[in-house]
Amino acid sequence: MSAADETREQPRFTGMALDRAHGSRKDADWLARQRRDPAARVVMAGADGVAIRDDEVVRAPAELLGDDDPVLLGLEDGAPRFALDLDGLDDARRAAALDGGELVGLRDAGAVLARAEAGLAAYVMALLNWHRRHRFCANCGHATGIAEAGDSRHCPHCGADHFPRTDPVVIMTVEHDGRLLLGRRSGWPPGRLSVLAGFVAPGESAEEAVVREVREESGILVRDPVFIASQPWPFPASLMLGFHAESDGGVPRPTDGELEEVHWLDLDAVRAAMGDGESPFRLPPPISIARFLIDRWVAGRGAEPVTGPSAW
Amino acid sequence: MSAADETREQPRFTGMALDRAHGSRKDADWLARQRRDPAARVVMAGADGVAIRDDEVVRAPAELLGDDDPVLLGLEDGAPRFALDLDGLDDARRAAALDGGELVGLRDAGAVLARAEAGLAAYVMALLNWHRRHRFCANCGHATGIAEAGDSRHCPHCGADHFPRTDPVVIMTVEHDGRLLLGRRSGWPPGRLSVLAGFVAPGESAEEAVVREVREESGILVRDPVFIASQPWPFPASLMLGFHAESDGGVPRPTDGELEEVHWLDLDAVRAAMGDGESPFRLPPPISIARFLIDRWVAGRGAEPVTGPSAW
Repeated sequence: MSAADETREQPRFTGMALDRAHGSRKDADWLARQRRDPAARVVMAGADGVAIRDDEVVRAPAELLGDDDPVLLGLEDGAPRFALDLDGLDDARRAAALDGGELVGLRDAGAVLARAEAGLAAYVMALLNWHRRHRFCANCGHATGIAEAGDSRHCPHCGADHFPRTDPVVIMTVEHDGRLLLGRRSGWPPGRLSVLAGFVAPGESAEEAVVREVREESGILVRDPVFIASQPWPFPASLMLGFHAESDGGVPRPTDGELEEVHWLDLDAVRAAMGDGESPFRLPPPISIARFLIDRWVAGRGAEPVTGPSAW
Repeated sequence: MSAADETREQPRFTGMALDRAHGSRKDADWLARQRRDPAARVVMAGADGVAIRDDEVVRAPAELLGDDDPVLLGLEDGAPRFALDLDGLDDARRAAALDGGELVGLRDAGAVLARAEAGLAAYVMALLNWHRRHRFCANCGHATGIAEAGDSRHCPHCGADHFPRTDPVVIMTVEHDGRLLLGRRSGWPPGRLSVLAGFVAPGESAEEAVVREVREESGILVRDPVFIASQPWPFPASLMLGFHAESDGGVPRPTDGELEEVHWLDLDAVRAAMGDGESPFRLPPPISIARFLIDRWVAGRGAEPVTGPSAW
């Protein structure tokens, strides 16, 4: 099955196959044994991408880890896999670590890797992005250290434990009368359109965030959002929550500065923008849940009337 | 409609009615005008609860704000509402600010307040919890300051912008052969049972988190999680993502130390634990999405076979 086929069923970057070993991480003896396991390997990434060779994520010798507290990704068929941040190495050690592999941006990696490998790439990027940008305690400002084999960081000064941050984002197809609401964000190339999206705010549900974001960005009112699928999106730390919502229509207008333009496109116009015809527009790449949602809308013309468990 | 009736349709703590004013917050002149607006009021909370009087969230005089950069909650019928952290005041100022109101824990507040008031209480708790515990830059350790009228914090040292943290958590009814999987966490009182739950980890989808958490906590395998509803849960900063999943059964066992016991309960046993009969078990209170999901399962005996948009 090709990468393109696979993404029709689940969004890209799902499917990571390692056992995260959450039940064993606090056991220092267990962790020491994992370090010494001859089958141990390291997966390497930096802020710019993940190390890949021959269309697979590189599993490099565990000796690269050095003496720092290790970040354990988990177990792959029982064998430990650690994470190594290439951005913490000097140029010579970095080149040696890559050993002929190539640092590939996660978007590009997601387009070429098989499903479980793309999931592993997303996981190592997400975890190292967090460690790299959270080396200090947000509560007191003191330097923190790796704990639970990389599942958390501990502050020795105020005692706070910090866990990986994942930001929930809602993203949604919005339909009215057979047309789809698509917008172009400030800074995107001319013609690039996508579905609307935004971070879930403090004190609101995901469904409320869908309604608020569409209203804030376009002035359009929607109702009864229906959940479709979610996707890890470590750019640097998002969890995309994909919804579909119906609207009673209206003229969309960029209202809060997030969008430069926003339009209703009918099915033919969306198909053309997908590459099936002449179009001034371009849609997001297949690795994104945005495109997953748009493809799903085109295939089914959106959600059927809700009769199942989501009707609550 | 009573609070109990309302929670049957949407989880508690949804329904916050303020306009968050995301499009205006960066405008310093606009913000200064809000500070001077005679209709401006402050909503007050501390780590232990929110200020309530006569079954409503207190709107106190805006003079209480002082000279610090303000945290704006939003607009209520066009009138600005700010947030004030009572934990930052000395005892005398705190008593004066409360002015006969009472500091009530958010769980208790959620049980007595009308829907929109409970939503406001959750919002002010969530936002102030974040500011209180994130006064320093996680990237460099320097003290940060309030920006965007409280929607973010900025680090003057390294330039990083920090946004409110919301942790996605999956929580799920799991069914097999007409029975529901319920567990008791370490530290809970004897007899207290609830559905399983856990944080979404880096590099996984919410659906994958459902499968992983149930397996890690109980050894039970589930498939095809179906999203039900979500709930803001600021204890201190969670977004609960409620699912239902089917299992092929098996004997559940606490496997990772999170649970002390875990059982399959049939419909009669769940109903008894709800208070309809003699039971050694007690279920979570109505304000929680845990109870919302259990009530929904009892009412409908779980999800119908998936035929709608969530079938993807």
